[in-house]
Amino acid sequence: MAAIQERVEAALARSLPAADHEPRRLHAAMRYAVLGAGKRVRPLLAFAAGAATGAAPERLDAVACAVELVHAYSLVHDDLPCMDDDVLRRGRPTVHVEFDEATALLVGDALHSAAFEALAAQPLAHDPQRQVEMVRALAAAAGSRGMAGGQAIDLAAVGRAMTLPELELMHIMKTGALIRASVLLGAQCGAPGEGELERLDRYAQCIGLAFQVVDDVLDAEGSTATLGKTAGKDAARSKPTYVSLLGVARARELAQTLRGDARAALADLGPRAGRLAALADFIVTRQF
Amino acid sequence: MAAIQERVEAALARSLPAADHEPRRLHAAMRYAVLGAGKRVRPLLAFAAGAATGAAPERLDAVACAVELVHAYSLVHDDLPCMDDDVLRRGRPTVHVEFDEATALLVGDALHSAAFEALAAQPLAHDPQRQVEMVRALAAAAGSRGMAGGQAIDLAAVGRAMTLPELELMHIMKTGALIRASVLLGAQCGAPGEGELERLDRYAQCIGLAFQVVDDVLDAEGSTATLGKTAGKDAARSKPTYVSLLGVARARELAQTLRGDARAALADLGPRAGRLAALADFIVTRQF
Repeated sequence: MAAIQERVEAALARSLPAADHEPRRLHAAMRYAVLGAGKRVRPLLAFAAGAATGAAPERLDAVACAVELVHAYSLVHDDLPCMDDDVLRRGRPTVHVEFDEATALLVGDALHSAAFEALAAQPLAHDPQRQVEMVRALAAAAGSRGMAGGQAIDLAAVGRAMTLPELELMHIMKTGALIRASVLLGAQCGAPGEGELERLDRYAQCIGLAFQVVDDVLDAEGSTATLGKTAGKDAARSKPTYVSLLGVARARELAQTLRGDARAALADLGPRAGRLAALADFIVTRQF
Repeated sequence: MAAIQERVEAALARSLPAADHEPRRLHAAMRYAVLGAGKRVRPLLAFAAGAATGAAPERLDAVACAVELVHAYSLVHDDLPCMDDDVLRRGRPTVHVEFDEATALLVGDALHSAAFEALAAQPLAHDPQRQVEMVRALAAAAGSRGMAGGQAIDLAAVGRAMTLPELELMHIMKTGALIRASVLLGAQCGAPGEGELERLDRYAQCIGLAFQVVDDVLDAEGSTATLGKTAGKDAARSKPTYVSLLGVARARELAQTLRGDARAALADLGPRAGRLAALADFIVTRQF
């Protein structure tokens, strides 16, 4: 895992414009937003899915950059004063605090474009038509029926009662869509066998939800120091979470169930799916 | 021109999620931001370039949507309080005034993704590898070395002296890059002959600058009523413009020179380029 995180860091550093390239302040802020921190969960998933389908690492670099750049752009925009108004991210001041609000807005926009540039800069699949489909899938995952739409539901939910199915739909869009895309795009860089994309998709849906359930538990129980972002902010804003709906103990149980379901979906893939199984464990047992 | 504007309006309306599809407020705001107004200059350019290379109109619909969605997203974000803080656009309240700031941020983000979804939703070129290259080109035109980068330079320039070459570089990035992409993507939906993309690119660079020069003249001379956006705001903010650097008379001359250069670049294309030539005239003589 550490080797892949290091590899992804290098790929991200290469894919972003140099800080001495004009406009310098924007490029410095883009690099600040992306480099040197972050768990790189989505890139790890892309690499693990690619390992399951025999994908070349050079292709996976591009997919890993694309999904992480989308994720990074969303964090920068989510932290803005008109959204979550947060000052701490990945253990450092957020982009609009370190730079300014207008720069943070443009950083998010430019990272968003950079994600699609990364995904289209080199051949990623034997059949280029598949690469076009990968672009479509990432755009759909990021858009109003995916991540951005989930964020809109999240905003509307502050201080309002929400049922468990409503909460689930929100997270399927807000976090789940991009996690699914990370797995599926990684897998499509290789040669997935008959029915394997469907199984990987089931895996991705389970760990996408598990990821969010654990996030809610950590937000309720963790400290700002270990999380590297402001802890306890869901409760402070009366945001519905798995913890507020289920309590901590049942939320933990749910995460374990989802881990089991995720691993079960991998059964037919055999040892090639070993890294994906390990990531399901990591996502559920992580402490930050 | 009116027939294509109408066709593009219908294509945009189809490409955006319905307003009764969840999240409703976001989708309603996306439609508000895009539909029912706008000159559709970039779609017109894509269609005119496609006419020059024999492209199918169905493909041009997709390119027209993609470039107009990028343009629309940039307007929504540019109007936000942390950027230009504007209340009027296309004759109506801006998105953050009509809805709210967080929704406007997400509208821009979701339109940005929707642009790439539109560009990848159906085959647009005989060779899918070319379509991947079109995605890369649009992403580069929108990103930190294109539109978003130009916007960053623009922000940094408020109240500061700027030379004519500096002003030109800013506009080449801020408006020119997407106008070039509109022409080149439209042309690539057809079968451009040897050297034709280069000629079309020269045309696009000239009209891109001409467009901005005329914009500056209109901002200085036009009224808010005819422009549908706040007039005189460049001078109010001491922004460097072609008018502040050259005066109105010489700025108008420059626009005419660029129109001539643009038409000259089309010479070898013959009557197929008729619509592109007409658009060069429209861009320079428009009153709004």
